[in-house]
Amino acid sequence: MLQMSRLFLRTLRDDPADAEVASHRLLVRAGYIRRVAAGIYSWLPLGYITLRNIEKVVREEMDRAGFQEVHFPALLPREPYEATNRWDDYGSDLFRLQDRKGGDYLLGPTHEEMFTLMVKGECSSYRDLPLTIYQIQTKYRDEPRPRSGIIRGREFVMKDSYSFDIDDAGLERSYQDHRSAYIKTFERLGLKYAIVSAMSGAMGGSKSEEFLAPCETGEDTYVLCPSCGFAANVEAMSTKVSGKSYPDVPAIELLDTPNTPTIDSLVDVLNKNYGGGFTAADTLKNILLFADDQPISVLVPGDREVDLKRLQANLPGVSELRLFEEEDFAKNPKFVKGYVGPQDAQALGLKLYADPRVEIGSSWVTGANKNNTHARYVQNGRDFKVEKYVEAAEVRAGDGCPQCDTAVVIDRAIEIGHIFQLGRKYAKALDLTVLDSDGKPNVVTMGSYGIGVSRAVAAIAEQSHDQLGLRWPREIAPADIHIVATGKEDLPFDTAFELAQKLELAGARVMLDDRRDASPGVKFKDAELIGIPTIVIVGKGLANGVIEVRDRWAGTSIEIPIEGAVEFLSQLLK
Amino acid sequence: MLQMSRLFLRTLRDDPADAEVASHRLLVRAGYIRRVAAGIYSWLPLGYITLRNIEKVVREEMDRAGFQEVHFPALLPREPYEATNRWDDYGSDLFRLQDRKGGDYLLGPTHEEMFTLMVKGECSSYRDLPLTIYQIQTKYRDEPRPRSGIIRGREFVMKDSYSFDIDDAGLERSYQDHRSAYIKTFERLGLKYAIVSAMSGAMGGSKSEEFLAPCETGEDTYVLCPSCGFAANVEAMSTKVSGKSYPDVPAIELLDTPNTPTIDSLVDVLNKNYGGGFTAADTLKNILLFADDQPISVLVPGDREVDLKRLQANLPGVSELRLFEEEDFAKNPKFVKGYVGPQDAQALGLKLYADPRVEIGSSWVTGANKNNTHARYVQNGRDFKVEKYVEAAEVRAGDGCPQCDTAVVIDRAIEIGHIFQLGRKYAKALDLTVLDSDGKPNVVTMGSYGIGVSRAVAAIAEQSHDQLGLRWPREIAPADIHIVATGKEDLPFDTAFELAQKLELAGARVMLDDRRDASPGVKFKDAELIGIPTIVIVGKGLANGVIEVRDRWAGTSIEIPIEGAVEFLSQLLK
Repeated sequence: MLQMSRLFLRTLRDDPADAEVASHRLLVRAGYIRRVAAGIYSWLPLGYITLRNIEKVVREEMDRAGFQEVHFPALLPREPYEATNRWDDYGSDLFRLQDRKGGDYLLGPTHEEMFTLMVKGECSSYRDLPLTIYQIQTKYRDEPRPRSGIIRGREFVMKDSYSFDIDDAGLERSYQDHRSAYIKTFERLGLKYAIVSAMSGAMGGSKSEEFLAPCETGEDTYVLCPSCGFAANVEAMSTKVSGKSYPDVPAIELLDTPNTPTIDSLVDVLNKNYGGGFTAADTLKNILLFADDQPISVLVPGDREVDLKRLQANLPGVSELRLFEEEDFAKNPKFVKGYVGPQDAQALGLKLYADPRVEIGSSWVTGANKNNTHARYVQNGRDFKVEKYVEAAEVRAGDGCPQCDTAVVIDRAIEIGHIFQLGRKYAKALDLTVLDSDGKPNVVTMGSYGIGVSRAVAAIAEQSHDQLGLRWPREIAPADIHIVATGKEDLPFDTAFELAQKLELAGARVMLDDRRDASPGVKFKDAELIGIPTIVIVGKGLANGVIEVRDRWAGTSIEIPIEGAVEFLSQLLK
Repeated sequence: MLQMSRLFLRTLRDDPADAEVASHRLLVRAGYIRRVAAGIYSWLPLGYITLRNIEKVVREEMDRAGFQEVHFPALLPREPYEATNRWDDYGSDLFRLQDRKGGDYLLGPTHEEMFTLMVKGECSSYRDLPLTIYQIQTKYRDEPRPRSGIIRGREFVMKDSYSFDIDDAGLERSYQDHRSAYIKTFERLGLKYAIVSAMSGAMGGSKSEEFLAPCETGEDTYVLCPSCGFAANVEAMSTKVSGKSYPDVPAIELLDTPNTPTIDSLVDVLNKNYGGGFTAADTLKNILLFADDQPISVLVPGDREVDLKRLQANLPGVSELRLFEEEDFAKNPKFVKGYVGPQDAQALGLKLYADPRVEIGSSWVTGANKNNTHARYVQNGRDFKVEKYVEAAEVRAGDGCPQCDTAVVIDRAIEIGHIFQLGRKYAKALDLTVLDSDGKPNVVTMGSYGIGVSRAVAAIAEQSHDQLGLRWPREIAPADIHIVATGKEDLPFDTAFELAQKLELAGARVMLDDRRDASPGVKFKDAELIGIPTIVIVGKGLANGVIEVRDRWAGTSIEIPIEGAVEFLSQLLK
C-alpha cells in the first residue's frame, strides 16, 4: 500500500520551465521524474513503479514468445565496434571514454555487436538456431538536442532483441514472431499505434517497420493512406510520378532575370516579362550540398522544399550531408549562387541527383549558371542527365499514395518500436557462422528489434492525459485504486485504511491519501494529476453509509454503499 | 519451463584460463556469465535469472521495511561530486568522460550526492522525515585489479540505500532498521555471514558495520574472538597493549652492525656480538612512506609487518600512501637505507607515527641514522616522540581480543553488505536542511547502506558449491526442479514433459533436460554443474513405475513412484 502520508512524493503546482510537451510537464509535476542533466532523469517512486510495470509487460510478452533474456554491460570495449566501423560511424552520438590504463570504451547505444559475439561464443550448429535473445537495459546516446523529457533522453531504458537464423525464410519467420509479440505488447500497454514501413537507414539491412504512437507533439512524421491503409514514415514514402508528357519542347532560351533571389520573385519576373501562367511548379530548384565532401546538386520542383532527413535516408552510402554556405560559394565562383542550373553539371564537376518528380522529358525554368540569367525549356534527358533519382522533396498531405494514388494524410507520432531485418552485415563483420546440415559453414542472418521502455512511459502519458493530469491504463498505473480520505474526524481515515487493507488482500494495488494536513481540494487535484484510473473518496458520504467512486478515464462519479465496496471495486479490476 | 533442447546455454568442460576462484570458474563453466572485458561480464539466461532472483529478495526485504525505491542515472554530471570533493578524491577509480559539448560527466560509483540532492529537492520539513530510499542499480568503478569474476568487477549491480533523519537518535533507529532488514535479506539468500565492526574510511562518518560472507578465497580479512564474540575487519581491529614495564633503560649505545639488510640478519649479529637473547620483537622497524607527498616514518616492532590497508584506513586525512623506493633514498641521502631510526626524526623532517605496540617507556634496537650502525636502549618518550599512534602492524591469529584479550581467530570473507552512519557530511556539503518543529533550519543526518547484488551471486556460489559444481539455495536457483529425461524411447521424454507441466501448474519453476542428442552421463554432469537443488531422473525406472529424485545438497537419491510424484515434489518446495 502506498500511503501518501509517508510516500516520497511532492507534486508541483507549476510547470517546469524547460517542458515543451505534456508528458514531460505532467511527469515532473506529478512527481514521477526529476531532471539531473540534459536528457538525463531520475525516477521517483511513482515513476519507477510505472516504468517497472511497463518492463514487466514487455518481459512477459517476450518470454511468452519464447525469446530468452540475457544481459549485457553498458560499458563496452572499442574493438567489436571497430570491427563493424560503428566506433567511427556513430560520430558524436557515441559516449566514448578511457579506463585507467588508456583502453578505449564506449557506453552502448545499441548492442548488435555484443549479441553477435555472444551467439558466436555459444552456438556452432544450425541445430542451435533459430534463436531470439533479448535484454532490457540502460542505453546511452549523446543526442545533439535531448528534449521532451524522457522521450529523447541521453540515458534511457530499451528492450532490444536479436534473432539468429540460418536462412532468409527463417529470418522472415523470426521477424513475424517479433511483429506479433510487439502487437500484443503495445495492446497491453494501452497504446494506440500504427505500423509503418521504415527505411533500414544506417543499420544496413532490408525490411523494416516502425511502431509509431500517434500524438500531436511527436517528433516523427508519417504518411497514412485513408483508402488502402498504406503507412510509412516520411523517409520511406515513395513518390507516385504523374507520367505527364511534354511534347515538342523548344531549344533552351536564356532569360534576363536580375533580382530573383527566391522562387516567388522569379515567378513574378517570368509572369511579367515572359508571358503569363508560370507557377513555382514550373521552376527547378538546384540545391547544392556536400555529400561527404563531394559537391552534389539535388533537383526538386520549385514548389517543394528539400527534406534533408528523407534525402539522407535515401542515400545509404553517404554519412554526412551539408548544405552549401555563403563561404562555399565564395570559394567556388563557378557555382553562381541563385542561378545554378543542371545543364553544365558535368563541366562544373557536380553529381546530379533528382527527386522522382523531375521526370524524363519535363521542361523547366532553371538557372543558367550565369549571373542574373535563367534558362527555360530545360529538358531532363535532353539538356541534363540525372545520375540517380532519390526521394528528396518534402512529403505533403494530399500527395498521392504510392499504392493507390489516393491523397495521403500526414500525422505526427512518437516511435515506440522498431523491427528490422538486419541480414548478414554484423554476422559477416564479426564472423558468425554455424555449420549447416551438410557440415558447411554458413553466415547467420539476423533481425534486430527494439522497444523504448522508458520512452513508453512518456508515450502513454502523451496519448492518455487530459487537462487535469495523467491518466494511466490500469496495468501501467502505479496503483489500481487511489483512495482519498477527507475530513477532520478519525472515522473516514480509519474506514479508508480498512478498505485499503481489504482491497490489497483481494489483490488490488492501492494508494491511500491519508494526509491529515492537506485539504480535500489539494487531495482531489493530486489524485487527478497522478492519474490512477479509479479514485475512491471516503468522506462526508460516510454519514449516509456511502463512498464516492470516480472514473478517472470517463470523468464520471457514482456513490456506492461502503458495505460491499470491496466486492464492487474488485470487480472493476477484472 | 526452461527446456534445455532450446535453452541458450552451453556448458564448458574446461575451466576458463583466467579464473582463480571457484565461483568464477563454475559460473563460467555452467553458462551463467561470460567475460566481455576486464571486470566486465555479460549474463546468460541462467545467470540473469539467478541475479534477478537475488534482486527480488533484496527488493522485497527493502519494501517490507518501508524503504521506498527510486532510480538514478549512472551517467552523472560532475558538479555535485565537485561540491563534495569526490570528483578528485576518487582518483583513478572513477570513470570520467565528456559529452559532445565538453561537459564533464562520471559513471556513478556510489550515489550519496545524488540522493542528498533528490531529498533536498523534495523535502523541506522535519515532517517529511524520517525517510529511507533505495535503488538497485548498475555501478561503475575502475578497479586497479579487477578479479575473481563478478566478485570485484568494474561494472556491477548494487542495492544502495540512504536514510535521512532530523537527529542522531533518528539516525540510530534508521541504522538499526536497516541492520534488521539486512539480516533478513542475507538469511533468505542462504548466505552464512558475520557482522563485523568496520572503519568508516574515506566515506566520512561514524558507526559502520560490514556483512561478511566467510569463504577461503575472500579478499577481506576479519578477526573473530571465540570467547566474547567480538568481530571486526582487520582495518577496524584495535591493538590490546601489553603494558609491560621497562625500568632503568640505559642511555643509547651505538652498535657496529654492517651487512644487516633484514631483521633476521640484524638479530643474528646482535646475538653473536652483543650478548644473547635478542629476538625480532626487540628491534624496531622504521618504515618510510610518503603520505600525500609528505615523508613519514611508521614504527612497528621488528617481528611485525606494516599492513598498508590498515594504516591507510586509520589515517583518515591521507588520501595516498606510498612506500619509499630506491630512488627516493637516492634523492634523500639523509635517510640511510636500512639504518633509519626515530631518534633524529625532527632533524630529518620526518613525521613519526607508531603502532600502539611501540609503548611509552619501551626499549628498542633500531637504526642509528648512520651507515652500518644500529642503536640500542632507544626508548619511546625519552629518545623519540611519536606524533600519533595509529594501527599499522598486521593483525595475526592469536593477537589479543581488544575486548577480552582472548587469542583471536582470523578468517577470510567476501564483503556482501555495509551499513554506515554517514552523519552530516553530505548534507552539509550540499546544503540539505529541513525546518524543525520550531521553524529553524536543521542539517539532516544520513546513513548509507549497500548490498552487492551481482557479487552476492558469486558469494553464494563460493559458499555453497561442491566439487561437482554449483549448488543453489532454492529461492535463488534458476529453477526449483531439474528434470532429466533419459533413454532412446519417447516414453521417458513424454512422461518428463508431462511431469514438468504439472509441476509448473502447481507453482514450481522447472528446468527440463529434453535433449535427445546428449548421453545420460552428459546430462547428469550438466545437472550437477548447474546446481538446481532437486534433480529428478525420468528414465529406465519408468519400467517399474518409478523415477529417481536426487538432492543436490545432501547428495542423496531416492526412488519414488511416478504416481503421486507431483504431490511429492511440490511438498519439497514448501
